[in-house]
Amino acid sequence: MVQRVLSGMRPTGKLHLGHWSGALVNWVRLQDQYECFYVIVDYHALTSEYETPQVVRESIPEILLDWLAVGIDPERSVIFVQSHVPEHAELHLLLSMIVPLPWLERVPTYKEMKQQLVEKNLDTYGFLGYPLLQTADIILYKAEIVPVGEDQLPHLELAREIVRRFNHLYGPVFPEPQALLTPVPRVPGTDGRKMSKSFHNAIYLSDPPAVVWEKLRPMVTDPARVRRTDPGNPDVCPVFDLHKVFSPQPDIDFVNVECRRAGIGCIDCKQILFKNLSGFLEPIQARRRDWEARRDDLMGVLHEGAQKARAIAHETLREAQTAVGLITPDEVRPREKRTEDGKVGP
Amino acid sequence: MVQRVLSGMRPTGKLHLGHWSGALVNWVRLQDQYECFYVIVDYHALTSEYETPQVVRESIPEILLDWLAVGIDPERSVIFVQSHVPEHAELHLLLSMIVPLPWLERVPTYKEMKQQLVEKNLDTYGFLGYPLLQTADIILYKAEIVPVGEDQLPHLELAREIVRRFNHLYGPVFPEPQALLTPVPRVPGTDGRKMSKSFHNAIYLSDPPAVVWEKLRPMVTDPARVRRTDPGNPDVCPVFDLHKVFSPQPDIDFVNVECRRAGIGCIDCKQILFKNLSGFLEPIQARRRDWEARRDDLMGVLHEGAQKARAIAHETLREAQTAVGLITPDEVRPREKRTEDGKVGP
Repeated sequence: MVQRVLSGMRPTGKLHLGHWSGALVNWVRLQDQYECFYVIVDYHALTSEYETPQVVRESIPEILLDWLAVGIDPERSVIFVQSHVPEHAELHLLLSMIVPLPWLERVPTYKEMKQQLVEKNLDTYGFLGYPLLQTADIILYKAEIVPVGEDQLPHLELAREIVRRFNHLYGPVFPEPQALLTPVPRVPGTDGRKMSKSFHNAIYLSDPPAVVWEKLRPMVTDPARVRRTDPGNPDVCPVFDLHKVFSPQPDIDFVNVECRRAGIGCIDCKQILFKNLSGFLEPIQARRRDWEARRDDLMGVLHEGAQKARAIAHETLREAQTAVGLITPDEVRPREKRTEDGKVGP
Repeated sequence: MVQRVLSGMRPTGKLHLGHWSGALVNWVRLQDQYECFYVIVDYHALTSEYETPQVVRESIPEILLDWLAVGIDPERSVIFVQSHVPEHAELHLLLSMIVPLPWLERVPTYKEMKQQLVEKNLDTYGFLGYPLLQTADIILYKAEIVPVGEDQLPHLELAREIVRRFNHLYGPVFPEPQALLTPVPRVPGTDGRKMSKSFHNAIYLSDPPAVVWEKLRPMVTDPARVRRTDPGNPDVCPVFDLHKVFSPQPDIDFVNVECRRAGIGCIDCKQILFKNLSGFLEPIQARRRDWEARRDDLMGVLHEGAQKARAIAHETLREAQTAVGLITPDEVRPREKRTEDGKVGP
């Protein structure tokens, strides 16, 4: 049987080269081997954006466009919005009964995020429940494979702990999801730090060529290379990191040699990168424009994705509720027609 | 417009005289004046019973029978099970984003219950969220009136705080629910303490006469009245407390006089109470037997209640989601038929 993959992204802005390299390139490939569920987790976004939820609303079509543009295929993968499948909230509530508070409080990202985002009030019930909601997202589809970054490993370990506790209390319902950890090359932003929306150093998948060049041109390079005639060191140059991801091998080799002997200047090097980045982004942006022109079809992807996801989620939820011993709505369905006017009782 | 009342009970056992006097007698009356929603809160029961959920399953039909037996009328009131309306879980998750943890941690019942029920592990995420789930239960129906006991007042104050915060952040969606505090006479159990399942001192609405007498006969009375010839003091006698609730005035007056001058013994007094209790319970138990004989109709009450509740809950949830700014499933519904095979996309 084909194994299931689940992964998601928070709709808190459009996607950049870091998202492509860190997740999307892998997601596209996984479609060949697995049944993939890709979910836009709007509730997760609200845990931090609840005071300015407009960004969540605006980001949903943007992220969807980015996904479709890079090759996430709605004919093969199930693409949907978390809040369109009520079973996420229901399983989250059911699981909440068996999850000890210390399990959530000790998740490393919990304290880190609270400290990092001091300008936001993250001392909420919802933010504490973030990894529990992730667990519900995953096991609702009995996904066995979860492609994650290293920082998300503790969340997946928590998911496995919750699964073990549930299965121990109520019988074997859920498989333990496994992390799929793919080595991710470094994708620095224009300032040399990790590419991130909040650092304002990102090149977006939807940036037009002029914008890409505007960002590349002043990009940080080897700080020791002050004059055009100074030899440079690609090993410490963020532009070279981007070459390694987005340029073909001959260009990488050329830059690696010519930079070290001052054969080319930084602007020359960046022009080569720009050419390659443009070639990479062009078909992506063409597909994006295609979908943008058909807004109804675009929203239809989310509609059909939610339909497919719900069918599976509903079945899993009922199985979990039955294992716990709840009286499910199916058990109180009337078995036969009663009086003419549909009334019940004496 | 008729105002809405919402109240609920946890399915953790069948109901006793204390439930009748403390809530049900009032619930039956409220039906004349309000649109009433009476909900069997199975998720709330799981917060404490998650390790032994069988009691939840078994108690649901018992409580329903008790409600119908005392006169909760499914033609006038909406009677349903919490987990049959997914919108409770969805609104609970949505609200969780805006509720600061300290608001939940400072609810007086939170620490008290944890201390009282030390044999159960209540240090869970679900138990901490108990009053938040209550808030969702109430405001999902925009209920204005919530009949509560004094101990539940802090929960209702929290519900109002959450409503104010939501309305402040996203616009006026929810009314602030008001407590309906009805004075409740003391209903002691057979040992003189408050009647409670966990004290094993309860007389149940479904106890047959022989069982009622078995419980009444050895019931604690004025401890100073040792011999039949000792005069008694009704003011300190738990049996007299029950007379005040379940006996007609002439019997109350008679016992009040005759006990004080040793005109009657405790067994005489209890026989009078037994006669009155039997008269009170007889029609209740007759109605109970009626419903018990029609299991399909009984479950049908829950089915139709859930249908009615869902229609309202769905509307409120969509209103709340729209106020927050989520893209709702209604917004991604296809506006027209597309290709012949129903497929979307290029």
